[in-house]
Amino acid sequence: MTSKINEKNVVLGLVQMTCEVDPKNNLEKAVLKIREAAKAGAQIISLQELFRSQYFCQENNDQYFSLAEAIPGQTTEILGNVAKECGVVIVASLFEKTSDHQYFNTACVVDADGKFLGKYRKIHIPDDLPNYYSELYYFKPGDMGFPVFETKFAKIGVQVCWDQWYPEGSRSLALQGAEIIFYPTAIGWPDTQRDQEIGSSEFDAWTTIQRSHAIANGVFVAVTNRTGKENHLSFWGGSFVADPLGRVLKKSSHDQEEILIVECNLEKIPEVRQDWPFLKCRRPDTYRNH
Amino acid sequence: MTSKINEKNVVLGLVQMTCEVDPKNNLEKAVLKIREAAKAGAQIISLQELFRSQYFCQENNDQYFSLAEAIPGQTTEILGNVAKECGVVIVASLFEKTSDHQYFNTACVVDADGKFLGKYRKIHIPDDLPNYYSELYYFKPGDMGFPVFETKFAKIGVQVCWDQWYPEGSRSLALQGAEIIFYPTAIGWPDTQRDQEIGSSEFDAWTTIQRSHAIANGVFVAVTNRTGKENHLSFWGGSFVADPLGRVLKKSSHDQEEILIVECNLEKIPEVRQDWPFLKCRRPDTYRNH
Repeated sequence: MTSKINEKNVVLGLVQMTCEVDPKNNLEKAVLKIREAAKAGAQIISLQELFRSQYFCQENNDQYFSLAEAIPGQTTEILGNVAKECGVVIVASLFEKTSDHQYFNTACVVDADGKFLGKYRKIHIPDDLPNYYSELYYFKPGDMGFPVFETKFAKIGVQVCWDQWYPEGSRSLALQGAEIIFYPTAIGWPDTQRDQEIGSSEFDAWTTIQRSHAIANGVFVAVTNRTGKENHLSFWGGSFVADPLGRVLKKSSHDQEEILIVECNLEKIPEVRQDWPFLKCRRPDTYRNH
Repeated sequence: MTSKINEKNVVLGLVQMTCEVDPKNNLEKAVLKIREAAKAGAQIISLQELFRSQYFCQENNDQYFSLAEAIPGQTTEILGNVAKECGVVIVASLFEKTSDHQYFNTACVVDADGKFLGKYRKIHIPDDLPNYYSELYYFKPGDMGFPVFETKFAKIGVQVCWDQWYPEGSRSLALQGAEIIFYPTAIGWPDTQRDQEIGSSEFDAWTTIQRSHAIANGVFVAVTNRTGKENHLSFWGGSFVADPLGRVLKKSSHDQEEILIVECNLEKIPEVRQDWPFLKCRRPDTYRNH
């Protein structure tokens, strides 16, 4: 790497929290933590996947459809007000219900002036009831591609939870100019019999695959995971930010609520890509779209 | 992960070695090491990138074109004989010259009965003279796609060096049924001013991206790198094998010649994919072929 000459810093705030049953309380807590993160200097703040509720996909129960809401709608309006008040960008994951009664696992981005910038509907939906991620019962697979959002502080993209295992999504966002990719997520250890070594390997694989998206694409990655025990899952926390060489800049504990404040120098992106010009040498002519 | 019930073991042998100027000596050494690996139980043996010569791409010099050879040709015939003698599959990287005077960075696979199974021409070609990987001067970018080879012991694919940074190639091989992906490579630290921390971060990024291919695709990855100092580069060795959870099963030192012998249970592949069915949930309908 050449020595650092330029700096274009943006400060990220990752809100890792527990959730309770009442969505109202979770929203109130998230708003308080957004204000706290902003006070600590954060400019782009990411909440975890489906932060308004507990992670209900551990069972198939039609009462949970009542948690869904319009996007933009009531929650994005509240978040827009906080964004404007604090002058911060907010990345939020919500359960979306459309006017024609379709349901999606959707992330939205609100800009620092409070404006709703747009949404991304989770593309890869796990269907894994024995392991407690039964999302196809609730969510239609995303139908809006991989949008990139030009926020006040950086060009960003979002991938939601299970998306994080797929290089295709992160690649698409980077090719469209994303500088930071956010991964709001809700992943944890099931209470079935698994030894500690397997549990630790799974957590390590999860960290590794997301660091690899940073490396392959020369971007920053920012992962906000849930913590706490809900029903069968102990969410493993471990929120982190990695730089374009895949180096973890800061990470959270497994079991505590934390706000991770991480400064990222966006000039690292062209610097790393100059040394390792992976995007330049791609061969899309040879990639069959399997 | 469910508990291990079935076993279908295959033993890999990774030959990490230094190379000298005379190609004849390098071939002789490689043959000796193949015999040694086979004696230690290896069934599929991988040599490092361009094992017949020193890594000449550190300068643009037309005398090196004389190192190129037909594939199949003299070297694959010798390797075929050793393969048959030892009953092992061999993965070898060679400098190819075609009958119509085209040059490729080509890997070939010889089956355990000595039969030439086919070749793969390196798709991603770095062009990075200041950092001593000036390959576009020598090699035409590959034009044979990403072939998979059905060997006696496993279905395998090959990605050569710079290819290792691209999720697209490994994905293509896994989708076509590859169980093990081999990465013959020649990567190292340049003797320019870089601090130790950057050097260690680059090595870590290199390990991470290849482990991520194992994780994303639920396959084994086997990386054979060169060691020793040649001209401006100190090749960083560190050959390794990772399982479908991305766990490093065994790795080599940075600076020693080593033969890594690693047993892989191919039944781990369906086991891991059942828990984490990433390939099943892909959404090729949403992937634009950028």
